Amino acid sequence: MASLRGWREGLVSARTTDSARDIPEATVARLPVYLRALTTLVDNGTATCSSEELAAAAGVNSAKLRKDLSYLGSYGTRGVGYDVDYLRYQIAREIGVTQDWPVVIVGIGNLGHALANFSGFRSRGFRVVALLDADPTRRGEVVAGIDVRDFADLDAIVREHGVAIGVIATPATAAQDVADRMVEAGISSILNFAPTVIAVPAGVDVRKVDLSIELQILAYHEQRKQAEATA
Amino acid sequence: MASLRGWREGLVSARTTDSARDIPEATVARLPVYLRALTTLVDNGTATCSSEELAAAAGVNSAKLRKDLSYLGSYGTRGVGYDVDYLRYQIAREIGVTQDWPVVIVGIGNLGHALANFSGFRSRGFRVVALLDADPTRRGEVVAGIDVRDFADLDAIVREHGVAIGVIATPATAAQDVADRMVEAGISSILNFAPTVIAVPAGVDVRKVDLSIELQILAYHEQRKQAEATA
Repeated sequence: MASLRGWREGLVSARTTDSARDIPEATVARLPVYLRALTTLVDNGTATCSSEELAAAAGVNSAKLRKDLSYLGSYGTRGVGYDVDYLRYQIAREIGVTQDWPVVIVGIGNLGHALANFSGFRSRGFRVVALLDADPTRRGEVVAGIDVRDFADLDAIVREHGVAIGVIATPATAAQDVADRMVEAGISSILNFAPTVIAVPAGVDVRKVDLSIELQILAYHEQRKQAEATA
Repeated sequence: MASLRGWREGLVSARTTDSARDIPEATVARLPVYLRALTTLVDNGTATCSSEELAAAAGVNSAKLRKDLSYLGSYGTRGVGYDVDYLRYQIAREIGVTQDWPVVIVGIGNLGHALANFSGFRSRGFRVVALLDADPTRRGEVVAGIDVRDFADLDAIVREHGVAIGVIATPATAAQDVADRMVEAGISSILNFAPTVIAVPAGVDVRKVDLSIELQILAYHEQRKQAEATA
């Protein structure tokens, strides 16, 4: 009995200290979706929810949700469900958005403007510390309360604020050069909105946002609906 | 032997005519990613590629890629790989982007401007036929060669162009009203960029783009890199 207890404690302790390493990438990608659903529930004054309710709010099936949350050691309470506020905190901590992330945005065209003004960054721990543009005519412009500065200031800004994450919102032709300069300055995570693939050294993470992908998924379903309506 | 052959032909024929219904949602979501990778390969003059090469270009593992493509009846040729141009056509047809999709964008702030100018829509079969805004001071403005028109014109525009897909780029407070009006006008697929959840009747598809989700996935990995660097 003592040895069984020791074995179980070992398991729990392993889960507590190493949990991060065991989470599959597909689960990581769903954590922000759960966080958003939980934030809506908190805003609506909901204290507890079942896995079915949370799954419906997040748009996944409940078996997948329970499996995903089990990687975080969150199993809810039988007959009660999940404590909404605590689960939100657990997921936010797991993602890393309980800490403050200073971010720079490079390329202050329409998309850069939209990103600088996007309230969803600030509410999730991302603080835009600088807006940079290579075009001298943009300098002095103030967007969302932040001065647009010279791209040449990148090094100094990254050092001053400890910036780890950079956002590229330039045209495709400028993106690789901007990425190279970001990496040289010490940035190790890049979110790329430019419609091109950028190459980075090992150890640097790049995520690409393609604004047309969701539209293509809609087209897929729309085509099927139209074919069914015709049939 | 004859009966086995008949059975196999039956299988192939079912796959040809009904293939669309059997494709899992996760595979559907990856098809645009494959399409983008194949377009890059075509642009680079690549005629054939192995599943490993295509998987690397698309950022998935090659077993998953082969499984996904098997739903389309695409198996490549042993020792040769996939015909890049033909596979691109097959996937584009499956998604539905070989046909022309007239699209309206509602909400012509910074994000609406960026979307109207986004070349990735046009190159994938999406044609922006109208830009609509409720703000009368925006009217007469021309964005990406298209006049900004009154939101009240929605019905007439949907009828005239046969619009099935609408894009919402308004503030959160306006999104539900815009969605209701789109549905009334006959739009059955909505891409929602507003930071809020919208309710629609059965038969209408909604996809939501949350610009902060990819940033959160980066934060997750960045947090781990920093913890490892400290350890």
